[in-house]
Amino acid sequence: MQYPSKLIEDAVNEISKLPGIGKKTALRLALHLLKQEENATDNLSAALVNLRQKTKYCKICHIIADSEECTCESIRKDNSILCIVEDTPDVIAIQNTSQFYGYFHVLGGIISPIEGIGPNELNIDTLIKRVENSDGTIKEVILALSPTMEGDTTSFYIAKKLMPFNLKITTIARGVPIGGELEYTDEITLGRSIVKRLIYDITSD
Amino acid sequence: MQYPSKLIEDAVNEISKLPGIGKKTALRLALHLLKQEENATDNLSAALVNLRQKTKYCKICHIIADSEECTCESIRKDNSILCIVEDTPDVIAIQNTSQFYGYFHVLGGIISPIEGIGPNELNIDTLIKRVENSDGTIKEVILALSPTMEGDTTSFYIAKKLMPFNLKITTIARGVPIGGELEYTDEITLGRSIVKRLIYDITSD
Repeated sequence: MQYPSKLIEDAVNEISKLPGIGKKTALRLALHLLKQEENATDNLSAALVNLRQKTKYCKICHIIADSEECTCESIRKDNSILCIVEDTPDVIAIQNTSQFYGYFHVLGGIISPIEGIGPNELNIDTLIKRVENSDGTIKEVILALSPTMEGDTTSFYIAKKLMPFNLKITTIARGVPIGGELEYTDEITLGRSIVKRLIYDITSD
Repeated sequence: MQYPSKLIEDAVNEISKLPGIGKKTALRLALHLLKQEENATDNLSAALVNLRQKTKYCKICHIIADSEECTCESIRKDNSILCIVEDTPDVIAIQNTSQFYGYFHVLGGIISPIEGIGPNELNIDTLIKRVENSDGTIKEVILALSPTMEGDTTSFYIAKKLMPFNLKITTIARGVPIGGELEYTDEITLGRSIVKRLIYDITSD
């Protein structure tokens, strides 16, 4: 593509390096910024640089944070449950359900031989130490990883590593999504949800 | 949505101000930048600020450019044809066809009473002056505006304004898109393409 200006070309090239954004979308975004007030671009730019330069990861749970000190104590209640997730979006997603008040532990990825990510690349060592050092405070570990091959492998690996600590190890429920229609649910999910069926509890919602 | 860090929240808010980008996509982009080298963010940020601060508009054709001086002479050949377009993406699109070697004139929008854009908000005065001052060099004006209500209104307005100059005024062809299937073409386009049918020329491609 030929651009009428070097500045536009540079901006399009940089924007289109972002995932899921092609040259055409990048051009649309660049032209949008040109039509806005100058401080709109300055604010965007400053927010990105600030994010990249100042973001810290909590030393204990590895969540993205404004400082390295763990702030979990101030916002979470139940320190007996630890929820293992792949990455920060999962923390946000689970927090937004308002159904979990325990602590998190972010792995920073999942075991994926294809992408060359093994257990040592993930925050698994710190997880084991964290459980070890809790002196029995942590009673349950929830494995909240995606129900994929890699997620299942990682869950299995972690569960094995946690065996010696005599914890309750759970995993998030899998089955037909609420609001989903049976006939459009994939066979594997539907099959599993029959095999792993639950006792119907008339009092539960 | 609750974010684990103020920096993430600020970045998500700024990114999601861009058109077509919601909070979830913004979060994904922000986390992507966090996983890249720091200079990836710096380069993106610098390209945006540079674009916004340094971009000029050519005084003559109003194309986005690196300076206010018109550089058309160096890249275009035929100064007898002037192509009127709505905005910069249209210039890029037409240039990429490699079928047009004349000059451009960017209106900066189209007449739209709903959005409060009248002829005075557009670069129409400068167009008239440009034709007037060309002393007959400009022989043809192509109205290359979108075939919408607003585009047609703008074309009509400009054509009327250009009447006194005794120019050839043309408009881009409308009809069934090449590669498109007749049965899926909308009725209006198909109807017009029959009414405005062309003599079949066995020698043309």
